Amino acid sequence: MLMVDIIRKKRDGQRLTKEEIDFFINGYVKGNIPDYQVSALMMAIYFKGMDDEETADLTKAMLYSGEKLDLSAIKGFKVDKHSTGGVGDKTSLVLTPMVASLGVPVAKMSGRGLGHTGGTIDKLESFKGFSTSITNEQFIHNVNTIGISIMGQTKDLAPADKLLYALRDVTATVDNMSLIASSIMSKKLAAGADGIVLDVKSGSGAFMKTDEDATLLAKKMVDIGKRANVRTMAVISDMDQPLGRAVGNSMEVKEAIKTLSGEGPDDLRELCLTLGSYMVWFAGKAGSCEEARSLLEEQLSNGKALEKFADFIEAQGGSREEVYNTDTLPKASKSRILTADKDCYVSSIMSEDVGVASLLLGGGRRSKEDVIDLSVGIYLHKKVGEKCAKGDKVATLYGNDETKMDEAFKRISQAYDFSDDPVSKNKLIKGIVE
Amino acid sequence: MLMVDIIRKKRDGQRLTKEEIDFFINGYVKGNIPDYQVSALMMAIYFKGMDDEETADLTKAMLYSGEKLDLSAIKGFKVDKHSTGGVGDKTSLVLTPMVASLGVPVAKMSGRGLGHTGGTIDKLESFKGFSTSITNEQFIHNVNTIGISIMGQTKDLAPADKLLYALRDVTATVDNMSLIASSIMSKKLAAGADGIVLDVKSGSGAFMKTDEDATLLAKKMVDIGKRANVRTMAVISDMDQPLGRAVGNSMEVKEAIKTLSGEGPDDLRELCLTLGSYMVWFAGKAGSCEEARSLLEEQLSNGKALEKFADFIEAQGGSREEVYNTDTLPKASKSRILTADKDCYVSSIMSEDVGVASLLLGGGRRSKEDVIDLSVGIYLHKKVGEKCAKGDKVATLYGNDETKMDEAFKRISQAYDFSDDPVSKNKLIKGIVE
Repeated sequence: MLMVDIIRKKRDGQRLTKEEIDFFINGYVKGNIPDYQVSALMMAIYFKGMDDEETADLTKAMLYSGEKLDLSAIKGFKVDKHSTGGVGDKTSLVLTPMVASLGVPVAKMSGRGLGHTGGTIDKLESFKGFSTSITNEQFIHNVNTIGISIMGQTKDLAPADKLLYALRDVTATVDNMSLIASSIMSKKLAAGADGIVLDVKSGSGAFMKTDEDATLLAKKMVDIGKRANVRTMAVISDMDQPLGRAVGNSMEVKEAIKTLSGEGPDDLRELCLTLGSYMVWFAGKAGSCEEARSLLEEQLSNGKALEKFADFIEAQGGSREEVYNTDTLPKASKSRILTADKDCYVSSIMSEDVGVASLLLGGGRRSKEDVIDLSVGIYLHKKVGEKCAKGDKVATLYGNDETKMDEAFKRISQAYDFSDDPVSKNKLIKGIVE
Repeated sequence: MLMVDIIRKKRDGQRLTKEEIDFFINGYVKGNIPDYQVSALMMAIYFKGMDDEETADLTKAMLYSGEKLDLSAIKGFKVDKHSTGGVGDKTSLVLTPMVASLGVPVAKMSGRGLGHTGGTIDKLESFKGFSTSITNEQFIHNVNTIGISIMGQTKDLAPADKLLYALRDVTATVDNMSLIASSIMSKKLAAGADGIVLDVKSGSGAFMKTDEDATLLAKKMVDIGKRANVRTMAVISDMDQPLGRAVGNSMEVKEAIKTLSGEGPDDLRELCLTLGSYMVWFAGKAGSCEEARSLLEEQLSNGKALEKFADFIEAQGGSREEVYNTDTLPKASKSRILTADKDCYVSSIMSEDVGVASLLLGGGRRSKEDVIDLSVGIYLHKKVGEKCAKGDKVATLYGNDETKMDEAFKRISQAYDFSDDPVSKNKLIKGIVE
């Protein structure tokens, strides 16, 4: 088998066999197939695509290119959750303790933020002493004892995906649905869960700009999961504006805690209940999605979800007191307020601008090596469709550096658009793919 | 400027600027841009193409990536010739002394054969002592004294094309008209001629399988030449069967000598007169193409063309006697004859099979390091449209090894197709692009 023939075959629009896909992934990981042939193949795939079977074969080849996490020591049906990434997305912080409080084992790998989107691990590090650098044994032990653990991604999972993604990033071959789907799913499947719920963001602040693209990606990922015999579903959710009202690490933690206490913004609560219902139902802790939702609502109002979050923070080195009294979480020293200069309605909030504003304040990373300021962020007093009277607070920036705040303030001002006429609110859940 | 942005731009179907093309070619030659980004760009170009201006800019960037041959010390209008390669194509051997005999300076770089096509240098080495390994100074001196010289390609001409071609070869990105055209023309323009005539082969044995493709490639190359202010034209010629009747190094030399003596096969003579007329006309040695043709016909019949060939062979270390008495040229020890097993007409001769048969006999190279047998080859007694009586000789193989001859004989038998009904002859000149 020659790599050049595989490239030519795809270039000419033919489908690749499982053997050909295994050949190129294994050869690439072993260093027998050079980058320049793989990048040419990626560009051919960009143009000619892959069908569902090829996509599943590619995912499997990448999944088995390294270690697969063995979660068999964890009792019960393990459900993982993945989001394609957005601004203000603190869903995992709410969702995981919430479902764990109903006895669904949560063994989750999370990442750090890069660019204008944040990462669950960074947010959790707002708690003094908290760490996700734990061994596989501790990870499994925590899940078996308190029902929940979150760790950083290990290097050994799906190494082919890491190589391939780094190559695609510098060869303009990222934007292909099959490649995106297989990249995400190879890591998720390698993480060993029995079920997967996916949150595919759609809108200006998301990787998928349209509902059509988001739905297509969701379908591809659900198909891959099913072909791998892992129960999988996806929610298409709005990212035409940030999720919730808080953007920035410690600020998002506070909003998550409010939501776990039965308060918090409607959209965040709704998204967590939707995703959570499927997780609980998949895990067999409820007879239907509807029943699962009622159970979850109960956990939010009776304090059990928040309690599980406190158990989790404590088990990984943090203080449970900080969960109940968030005053000691990192807090910025300065603030600046954007106000409405006339009576109006918010017609749009560009999520990406809000994410970049948070990055400019110091709350995000431009490159992997950057150190981030967990205290800074933005609070959105007004969201799309909400009415502003002249002089009303629209957004507040929290920062520690006046120059950075100048830049971020400009960006936040750009992010908002207003209308004299009433504007309808964004629909949060745009679709479900099962 | 970032290479990934250039790739993305082409991927999205936009045109590249001269600055972007220069950036990537210079960066690639200097080693600042890695193979994997260039191969991704080549695949994007494969799918999205390049317009005429981009193609000319790419050619120029490659042309100036190394040394450009300085032929200013040669007096007169220098015309170069290039063929896209075929089986039995000994045109250069006839054409160059023929036009040189009319005072058109011929300063030509030639190559060696690879795969099923032969190379001019290999053929010329049939003459004992003959060498194309001469210095630039000797090369220019010979052109200025006897009017003709042929040398091997120097490594310093268009190094970007060498790098790029090697990469395209292993990434399935060879088959793009703009890339093929710029590859050929960058080398030709770097060789410093004032005019270029191109022989674009079309048919089963050629790189371009259809007349449409051959015409498109010809147009692209002529356009590049014109944009570089070099007078350029192209002939589209038939390669649905081999050119002439002899295939194999010393056998082709003999056929070329016959043609230079005013004999030789009609198709070879016709192609040489067509290409030669343009060369003579471009060089200002005739007032029209028609006049140039008459002058050339005269040189074939009066012995001047052959005499110039003898001068040339002698000047580069060979013996002029061998030109007039070819008995001492390499000759194979064995022969085998394919005969017609019924009365019929030749309906087709697959050129590629004939080329491969010659390769199998030892007359060609599988890889660049192979040593070739100059004596072996195939003589085609019958060509397309010609009538065979039962028992007539169709083709004769000349070889030195029975096993190799067995294989080659099978291949030659496959190459021929016959028909009971009369078949029209192939049209040799399929088009002219000026």
